[in-house]
Amino acid sequence: MGQQVDVVELAKRRGFFFAASEAYGGAAGFYTFGPEGAALKRNVEAAWRDRFALREDNEEIAAPTIMPEPVFEASGHLDGFDDMLVECADCGESHRADHLVEGATDIEDAEALDPTEVADLISEHNLTCPACNAELTGQPVEEFNLMFETSIGPGSGSPGYLRPETAQGIFVEFPRLKEYARGKLPFGVTQIGPAYRNEISPRRGLIRVREFTQAELEQFIDPEEDEPDLTKVADVDLRLYPAPEQAEDEPAEDGYIHTTVSDAVEQNIITSDWIAYYLGVAQEWYERVGIDTEKLRFRQHLPGERAHYAADCWDAEATIDTAVGTDWIEIAGFSSRSDYDLSKHAEHSDDSFTVFKQYDEPKTVERPSVDPDMATLGPEFGGDAGAVADALESLAERDPSAFDGEDVTVVVDGEEFTVDTDVAGFEVVEETEAGEHITPHVIEPSFGVDRTVYALIDHALSTDELGGEERTYLSLDAEMSPTDVAVFPLVSNHEPLVEAADEIVQTIRTAGFDATSDESGSIGRRYRRQDEVGTPFCVTVDRDGMEDDPQTVTLRHRDTGAQARIPTNELVGQLEALRDGDANFEALLSRYETVETGTAE
Amino acid sequence: MGQQVDVVELAKRRGFFFAASEAYGGAAGFYTFGPEGAALKRNVEAAWRDRFALREDNEEIAAPTIMPEPVFEASGHLDGFDDMLVECADCGESHRADHLVEGATDIEDAEALDPTEVADLISEHNLTCPACNAELTGQPVEEFNLMFETSIGPGSGSPGYLRPETAQGIFVEFPRLKEYARGKLPFGVTQIGPAYRNEISPRRGLIRVREFTQAELEQFIDPEEDEPDLTKVADVDLRLYPAPEQAEDEPAEDGYIHTTVSDAVEQNIITSDWIAYYLGVAQEWYERVGIDTEKLRFRQHLPGERAHYAADCWDAEATIDTAVGTDWIEIAGFSSRSDYDLSKHAEHSDDSFTVFKQYDEPKTVERPSVDPDMATLGPEFGGDAGAVADALESLAERDPSAFDGEDVTVVVDGEEFTVDTDVAGFEVVEETEAGEHITPHVIEPSFGVDRTVYALIDHALSTDELGGEERTYLSLDAEMSPTDVAVFPLVSNHEPLVEAADEIVQTIRTAGFDATSDESGSIGRRYRRQDEVGTPFCVTVDRDGMEDDPQTVTLRHRDTGAQARIPTNELVGQLEALRDGDANFEALLSRYETVETGTAE
Repeated sequence: MGQQVDVVELAKRRGFFFAASEAYGGAAGFYTFGPEGAALKRNVEAAWRDRFALREDNEEIAAPTIMPEPVFEASGHLDGFDDMLVECADCGESHRADHLVEGATDIEDAEALDPTEVADLISEHNLTCPACNAELTGQPVEEFNLMFETSIGPGSGSPGYLRPETAQGIFVEFPRLKEYARGKLPFGVTQIGPAYRNEISPRRGLIRVREFTQAELEQFIDPEEDEPDLTKVADVDLRLYPAPEQAEDEPAEDGYIHTTVSDAVEQNIITSDWIAYYLGVAQEWYERVGIDTEKLRFRQHLPGERAHYAADCWDAEATIDTAVGTDWIEIAGFSSRSDYDLSKHAEHSDDSFTVFKQYDEPKTVERPSVDPDMATLGPEFGGDAGAVADALESLAERDPSAFDGEDVTVVVDGEEFTVDTDVAGFEVVEETEAGEHITPHVIEPSFGVDRTVYALIDHALSTDELGGEERTYLSLDAEMSPTDVAVFPLVSNHEPLVEAADEIVQTIRTAGFDATSDESGSIGRRYRRQDEVGTPFCVTVDRDGMEDDPQTVTLRHRDTGAQARIPTNELVGQLEALRDGDANFEALLSRYETVETGTAE
Repeated sequence: MGQQVDVVELAKRRGFFFAASEAYGGAAGFYTFGPEGAALKRNVEAAWRDRFALREDNEEIAAPTIMPEPVFEASGHLDGFDDMLVECADCGESHRADHLVEGATDIEDAEALDPTEVADLISEHNLTCPACNAELTGQPVEEFNLMFETSIGPGSGSPGYLRPETAQGIFVEFPRLKEYARGKLPFGVTQIGPAYRNEISPRRGLIRVREFTQAELEQFIDPEEDEPDLTKVADVDLRLYPAPEQAEDEPAEDGYIHTTVSDAVEQNIITSDWIAYYLGVAQEWYERVGIDTEKLRFRQHLPGERAHYAADCWDAEATIDTAVGTDWIEIAGFSSRSDYDLSKHAEHSDDSFTVFKQYDEPKTVERPSVDPDMATLGPEFGGDAGAVADALESLAERDPSAFDGEDVTVVVDGEEFTVDTDVAGFEVVEETEAGEHITPHVIEPSFGVDRTVYALIDHALSTDELGGEERTYLSLDAEMSPTDVAVFPLVSNHEPLVEAADEIVQTIRTAGFDATSDESGSIGRRYRRQDEVGTPFCVTVDRDGMEDDPQTVTLRHRDTGAQARIPTNELVGQLEALRDGDANFEALLSRYETVETGTAE
């Protein structure tokens, strides 16, 4: 190819992903995953499910993507899930106002400013419309809510929104989910599915889209008692980029701290054990699925960057190649969210978002109480009697000593009422409590599936020279590759070869491999096609092999292009050995006859 | 339980599915799948993918759920995807007007009537509001579009809709998908994902919801040449309910035709081979996943029921138990859609929705053409010269013989123009054509995943008496059950038992089983819990077994409650044998010691 290989071009040509509805000019921010991309995405989801749900004993649910308005009143999205918008008066194009300011000034976090401040900065710096170059001075900057709104039911209906994160589908169902967990902390609930963000101007291909797939885990814990099993990931190496290092003007070396999970906890670099645990799990998972760990870091949010309720937050970031150089993109977030989410839903709904926490031993507590004699209060205070009784009750809880004397005085609507202590019926009752209702805290590992898919392709994209020609291939991990094995008849117009190839496909599939066949084009072109979609192995059925006794086929290794001629009846066994790590291709080459390949292969 | 077991109650109690966002009063027509239901749903999807994508060599894609308006202008949904709505003037409740009429009259297909006719029928029959009983006479009946609308981008944005079917995400991407298929018919593309329908009044729980999951296959074929391999399903027995049988006043016996796929084709009961093929595949698939085939039929659409472009359409229907008796619900549709979908998109967009079909041998065709001499026409006809030239061209295509004489006359805007044949430049050119561009036809098997899940639970729901107590259990097929094996320590406060149970869970998981553990409650309660979510096998670790040499555990069979005591180190092997059909539980019971279970089990 001679020039830099482009992920987006390859993705479109080979069916990984492409802009959706292009027949109608497309709709910015929406992508379709083609056959190869959908398979890769499913593999990412399955590997995530295996690690973050099954192996952690967490439960996965599937909630609707449309949710009613009260959910987002409670979650804060209705008020706060905004970006700053400025519209060009000339061409009508909309822009992220804070991004314009950041691009033209030294300000790094314009999002934290008020819209009026941002509007002033636009005028001050004479910023112009990136689309048509018209002046933006004086244009208002407005908060634009990023949720897609729709209407549920006929007529004016009731407002509904496409969820901006899968998490709310878990939080809002907590009252039921805790029942399935039998009321016992800690427990975790996961969800994998679409989420939506009506971006003002989506511009970075699959990286900033309006519809995307999240894989989220909400880990519900008792912050006073529950601890993760750090031993499982104690020795996992992390590349950390803590907040202090980001702030330093002259960071040491590359600015990163290379450390193990256990050291990061001991040295207090990561203050939450749960976050540390999941960073370790994530690091291992990224290695498993094929993220290049040289291109991975965990960056702590700066104090101004995280939500007010978040105790701590770290992002997993990966580099990708872009037209303007290498770029860090967020591919996951790990957030310690305190009891914010559940408390908000408890406040806004009538349901219970707590769990009952049993004490080791029942506690005896002294509880001051009043039991006013209404037969006395009624005649004495008339319409105010009820309010006086309430005031007595609240006083008893607040200041029991007020009932020490012979009478007690409360104030209702500015008026003083004095009551005999006897009439108030004050006493201190001893009560035995078996436990208390607590609101669980939430630890949230949240993964962007589409961005992970993008980073996997970016990190796997390789070029070399094979048979004298430049070649592009995807060195995807075998667990991730859309296809395990491709099978070709060497020529397509020779019926016995085609039939033999078909039979091999069936046999390989029965053994649990994802196999495909291809009869179209030269054998070299077919190899290239599979190289570009990351298929680890190709099997070719040729006439020579059909005449061998026993019959043989050639098995080709994606990363080296090397080929071995092996008996057909040993093929499945060898593929299984390669998959399970019981053999590598080198060993195969030394065991079987190596096939010499020409320049055109 | 003593009373009829209710799918909905069980589903909610055990975490299969429940109304979403109930903390806020819920939103009608939206359901959340809890841990058990989400797992069952994933199993249904995986089995569908295996059968309809992998084994048929079809490709799966994942398109966005939000699509821009032009897609639905082309598909016809913007104009035609309506239900008839009548609103009560008193209480404001909305109702399906056609359903009200059908409920109160002999009319079976009120949907086919005009809204004004339906309004007249409402008045004529003095129909009242089902919610408040107020008269509906005189209330207007309106068409209500069932797509959820939203706005893409800021400001007024551009209108977008949540897809009413996954199919459009496939059709609109056909120009690219045919490239991945290298332009060769037949090929099939599948998609599994959410679809939306803003029902006027969703009322039947999970059966009629506003957000649901579809599994659709669009099979693109050349109707003149491509045929399915009917031999694969020739002997599959079908219970057919063709249109004529539905119309008969006195149907023979049960009104159904019991026949094989091949006989149905030969006797022309099913006229499309492709539909017949997929009915056969579907029947086998339903048997595999555990639909009770006694409760399954394939019903042909009545002529008035199907879309005007559909050559034929059959629904798979299953019975479910409801509060008012047994009900047939549609769980899949099989439609022969002609070239309607692709032609519509070709009409509305600038992209190509055809494939190039190569002839076996190049054809020579005679193509009449004109090449008018504009230097003559211009001066002669002035401003009309261009229109005259166009008219000559169209005449040459329509009726070449018109150019046999010395001159030729065309009519433009009612005026006659006569031109010398020489000046028209008429000739018949011989052209060699290698093939032609054809618009593929579409065969569409479309499955409702949620309804399939519902039917599976309904058909699996069983009661019996075990140990003297009535018991509820789900006899789910092992491939579908959310959990393969549950492992219990007999008592939870004995650490060695708990540890042994944990170890067994890990071992079983490593062998590829989905395993869970449970320490909470009496052993009887724990068995019941697993029975109710359909777990085929339970393993219990007890002290007796720990003291055996070799150590043993008990293995319990869901459907019979029978238990065998087997050595721990033989457990995985036996579970594998049971899963692969190499052993049944009877054999196990005769081979190992049978455990006598008390009344409380």
